[in-house]
Amino acid sequence: MRVGLLTGGGDVPGLNAAIRAVVKQGEGEYGHSIIGFRNGWRGVVDGDVFPLGRQHIRNVLTQGGTLLGTARFHPHSSDGGIDGVLATLEAERIEALICIGGDGTLHAASKVAEAGVRIVAIPKTIDNDVWGTDRSIGFDTAVGIATEALDRVHTTAESHNRVMIVEVMGRHAGWIAVTSAIASGAELVLTPEEPFDIEKVVKFLKHRHRAHASFSIVVVAEGAVPLQGSAMSYEAPVGKFGEIVAGAISERIKVEIEERTGFDTRVTVLGHVQRGGIPTHTDRILGSRFGTAAIDAISRGETGVMTALRGEDVVLVPLEEIAGKVKQVPAELLQVARALA
Amino acid sequence: MRVGLLTGGGDVPGLNAAIRAVVKQGEGEYGHSIIGFRNGWRGVVDGDVFPLGRQHIRNVLTQGGTLLGTARFHPHSSDGGIDGVLATLEAERIEALICIGGDGTLHAASKVAEAGVRIVAIPKTIDNDVWGTDRSIGFDTAVGIATEALDRVHTTAESHNRVMIVEVMGRHAGWIAVTSAIASGAELVLTPEEPFDIEKVVKFLKHRHRAHASFSIVVVAEGAVPLQGSAMSYEAPVGKFGEIVAGAISERIKVEIEERTGFDTRVTVLGHVQRGGIPTHTDRILGSRFGTAAIDAISRGETGVMTALRGEDVVLVPLEEIAGKVKQVPAELLQVARALA
Amino acid sequence: MRVGLLTGGGDVPGLNAAIRAVVKQGEGEYGHSIIGFRNGWRGVVDGDVFPLGRQHIRNVLTQGGTLLGTARFHPHSSDGGIDGVLATLEAERIEALICIGGDGTLHAASKVAEAGVRIVAIPKTIDNDVWGTDRSIGFDTAVGIATEALDRVHTTAESHNRVMIVEVMGRHAGWIAVTSAIASGAELVLTPEEPFDIEKVVKFLKHRHRAHASFSIVVVAEGAVPLQGSAMSYEAPVGKFGEIVAGAISERIKVEIEERTGFDTRVTVLGHVQRGGIPTHTDRILGSRFGTAAIDAISRGETGVMTALRGEDVVLVPLEEIAGKVKQVPAELLQVARALA
Amino acid sequence: MRVGLLTGGGDVPGLNAAIRAVVKQGEGEYGHSIIGFRNGWRGVVDGDVFPLGRQHIRNVLTQGGTLLGTARFHPHSSDGGIDGVLATLEAERIEALICIGGDGTLHAASKVAEAGVRIVAIPKTIDNDVWGTDRSIGFDTAVGIATEALDRVHTTAESHNRVMIVEVMGRHAGWIAVTSAIASGAELVLTPEEPFDIEKVVKFLKHRHRAHASFSIVVVAEGAVPLQGSAMSYEAPVGKFGEIVAGAISERIKVEIEERTGFDTRVTVLGHVQRGGIPTHTDRILGSRFGTAAIDAISRGETGVMTALRGEDVVLVPLEEIAGKVKQVPAELLQVARALA
Repeated sequence: MRVGLLTGGGDVPGLNAAIRAVVKQGEGEYGHSIIGFRNGWRGVVDGDVFPLGRQHIRNVLTQGGTLLGTARFHPHSSDGGIDGVLATLEAERIEALICIGGDGTLHAASKVAEAGVRIVAIPKTIDNDVWGTDRSIGFDTAVGIATEALDRVHTTAESHNRVMIVEVMGRHAGWIAVTSAIASGAELVLTPEEPFDIEKVVKFLKHRHRAHASFSIVVVAEGAVPLQGSAMSYEAPVGKFGEIVAGAISERIKVEIEERTGFDTRVTVLGHVQRGGIPTHTDRILGSRFGTAAIDAISRGETGVMTALRGEDVVLVPLEEIAGKVKQVPAELLQVARALA
Repeated sequence: MRVGLLTGGGDVPGLNAAIRAVVKQGEGEYGHSIIGFRNGWRGVVDGDVFPLGRQHIRNVLTQGGTLLGTARFHPHSSDGGIDGVLATLEAERIEALICIGGDGTLHAASKVAEAGVRIVAIPKTIDNDVWGTDRSIGFDTAVGIATEALDRVHTTAESHNRVMIVEVMGRHAGWIAVTSAIASGAELVLTPEEPFDIEKVVKFLKHRHRAHASFSIVVVAEGAVPLQGSAMSYEAPVGKFGEIVAGAISERIKVEIEERTGFDTRVTVLGHVQRGGIPTHTDRILGSRFGTAAIDAISRGETGVMTALRGEDVVLVPLEEIAGKVKQVPAELLQVARALA
Repeated sequence: MRVGLLTGGGDVPGLNAAIRAVVKQGEGEYGHSIIGFRNGWRGVVDGDVFPLGRQHIRNVLTQGGTLLGTARFHPHSSDGGIDGVLATLEAERIEALICIGGDGTLHAASKVAEAGVRIVAIPKTIDNDVWGTDRSIGFDTAVGIATEALDRVHTTAESHNRVMIVEVMGRHAGWIAVTSAIASGAELVLTPEEPFDIEKVVKFLKHRHRAHASFSIVVVAEGAVPLQGSAMSYEAPVGKFGEIVAGAISERIKVEIEERTGFDTRVTVLGHVQRGGIPTHTDRILGSRFGTAAIDAISRGETGVMTALRGEDVVLVPLEEIAGKVKQVPAELLQVARALA
Repeated sequence: MRVGLLTGGGDVPGLNAAIRAVVKQGEGEYGHSIIGFRNGWRGVVDGDVFPLGRQHIRNVLTQGGTLLGTARFHPHSSDGGIDGVLATLEAERIEALICIGGDGTLHAASKVAEAGVRIVAIPKTIDNDVWGTDRSIGFDTAVGIATEALDRVHTTAESHNRVMIVEVMGRHAGWIAVTSAIASGAELVLTPEEPFDIEKVVKFLKHRHRAHASFSIVVVAEGAVPLQGSAMSYEAPVGKFGEIVAGAISERIKVEIEERTGFDTRVTVLGHVQRGGIPTHTDRILGSRFGTAAIDAISRGETGVMTALRGEDVVLVPLEEIAGKVKQVPAELLQVARALA
């Protein structure tokens, strides 16, 4: 059987573990030929393929990024995209497709599945907001990086009345922000889940600095927004590629805090540092399990499903169940972050 | 309310996060007084207590070990132990007890609960073999350390026909061995779950070295045992404190491999290095959530239960349900380790 | 003998190792009493002192920051500052002073020495620009952090024609920029030592992207400046405390590159993350050696000198020799960075 | 010009940085062809060569090991070895040779130079005992790994009267032992430089445990030896390849301590973990500088020299000057280790 494999969307650490697992299990257990597409769906439409073998996956477990390359291109949003996909699959005699990606790629996968292609998807996103799975590939490494940065900021001299804002990724959900805040003992965390009232933020900081501290750390998810009708109005700027502008919300909050408290406030934006480097053991294991489960599922004839972690188990979830949903941080975690600030 | 707190058994990274959470949530949310016992159950019997306050938990999130001290002493296994516990609790007017520990401590907790004490337990063990919870505090950090060591061994020059044995912890279950083997791409993993046949091990190594490799890494859980009736007989030596003797099984396997293959075989025993140092974000978050959940449960009047992770949720499990059970590595994980070797 | 000890200026990892060494060697070898001043010279003027003993230095080797606190206050720049210092030293019967700091503190130390106080200084600065010593405390840890961040940025997907600017510390010298650029294999590094010509920067990037790459990493020291009379004029903004405004030069370079090349350009500013966290072994050893050498020198009657690393040796350098000088990156290192880009 | 390049002896982190620098600077600056030999001198004698180009050195800065392979084979110790070297160099029209290695390789290099070959050497050894240079490639990474392991051991519960022995590399010199002991605050360090008296070791431990501690960490260099004529006699066992047997001296010391004190004593042998993994920034920079300096020297016509670090400078040292010498740890460092225990 000829099985195509692609990675789409932004790259994250752990993708190579999943690719390696697909190749090892696909060749070793089933005797499949694995065909790699370069640069995500773009490579499918363009017919940019190569036979992906054991020589490509040596020593990749510890490597960030993706050996297949990736692109932010989605066939269903471009004219003739789906047709291009089908044409390439036929030309290359590819019988099934495994695609690893986030929201956009999963959506494309369900469209391609509807067109009759046998397809299994694997979720990855450092935001961890894919519905239906406890964890997506890349999230754990990002939390590790954010936590280490927060630890570092925490040990610097505690200057009088200084506020340190550290902005982390998380457009629709504050997973990285909340978990790294708990792990590092940050004082305040602002997330998309709970729009903030700048007056309450300021009140909290003033009280804390008056009562028993000279220093506060505020973790801000890039997708944090002020409460509608509250004292701070804000229109999030949009980047060239529709992405969130790094640092925008944090710089705005900084101005508000400085004006309202007089506290010296500094901003650090972790940015792309969160997406790169050596994957944690957790992301390598998750990638390995998802890759193995995906090729197993394809070989059993499954289609239109996504591998998912549920507790200790890897299960399959229909792609249609997860479409259009965002997995936000549950109330219990938000409360722990607040309680331990 | 006066709530006692102790840590028992071997120390692991992440204990301080749980202690911190109990103190912060206990004082801040409920106004309890938290009373710390030094050196586990030994401190309870001896009345070695002190008021545990906010000054003790500053900057402890990143610290390994336990600020309370610990000991391998269990009241139910010593004459008058339970009576000593009850006497101290009465003398100190302690109304409830939170105890953090592994098998032994959890067993002691259920005995003390039977004697009428309100008690909530928190599971910790780097072996991850406590029944009823997906994860115990300390396991994630240990896997991280083992994986990093395996990565290092992996990048050294691949000498001709050398076998590297790396022994990790895991007496009754091979959690660290299996997960670090998957994360690092080790060639073979020997665990308590699947007694090994030395002849198959040797056959695998010979085939691999003949076919396409000059180097193999074998991860051995300290509790690995040969298959009954197989070619290698082995009686595990027992240490002074009933513990497994570090390196014993690995040194024995080394001799067998060298005799049967002629391959130069080296042993590394990670030992205590696995128990120490900065906890990972995962262990800090788990400790924080378990600590918060335990004091919440105590405050609601729960007793005889253990905090547990199930998927994304923290739940409570009756202590009696977990008694005498060992959570071993599930078949799916063992298969992934085999498939990706 | 009563010996005073202070840390001044911004905090860096490794200060606690030096403090620990002064206390251990001072008490253990000489029987001195070590008197700690809180918050640098501010504490000397204010008489904010405490007896610094073994109980304060437990487990501090791995801790960033300074257990003494610090402040950006210099007695010679404030009315009656030196007199205040002398008054406190007399009131507290302090016979000698060890001060750990950067430029400002070293300058203050030489002024206080001129006033007749026995004084030995220890250099610290993550910028590594103190004259007369191969290394200052804090530099090695900062390079490690910058290198790790650059490694991470390097492994993310290599997007078409994207330029990543990473700004690191270094106001008057590009030590962190040049060394982390070499360590991580960055394509270009801009430093205070060599004012840059934006047209050459742009030409280099265009050529590289046309010839064989789709991605470039540019490391910018915060003190980088454009060449006088070149195509880009720039007036560095100055912060409230006279400090360099983080990100200012990088944001300006980003605009120039985008306008002149059309390449998508992103900025990451490492900022305070560089100053914190666990010191590397190198900074702990340097702090330990400098602390030991300082108390040895004080005990021998030395004054007006600074401990310095020269090759493998720790030596003493007269404070007057280093005044007003900045140690910049030597030509050989700049050339290595260029050759290996 | 055709320049040959080899790596000999045990592999260490940082070799790839040196290889990369030779290729980049050799091709880019001088237009040389770089010819790689596989597996050290073995590959020279066997004629196992390949043109080493830019495609081989992508992403190698962060990789441990050596992309050229290595072997513990030395031409001057085998019949016709030197003739074999000369024959291959002639057959391959190689005009100059750069060899990266430790003692054995440097010795071979001087023999080959005597035979009329233009040769420049680069020192590497995690033991740091090559004469004439402040640092050799690989040492810094090994110290980092040893320090991290000691930190971990240090944070585990301080059990009553337990002694932890941690054995690190260092056959003829105790560089790793002394520096990691200072960095981690270990209580005692035993090195080849200062033969130990077991009775003094025991007296120190007894006194410490009686006075104020319940736990001691002893760092042992693998080449540590008892003082001649002291209470403990010891004949170091020799391995199959003439190497030191890992753990032998430590296990022996453990027995002595347990018998003489009754303290529970445990041994951890770091072993091969010290040789692998990601090089530190320091080793990457050192490798990059040495590689650049070596190809510069070759191109200028130098021969019979070794690149060396002296303070901030890279210099050249005649190979004949270093022959037969071992650089041991200086007295000042040994004293710091003792003072700060």
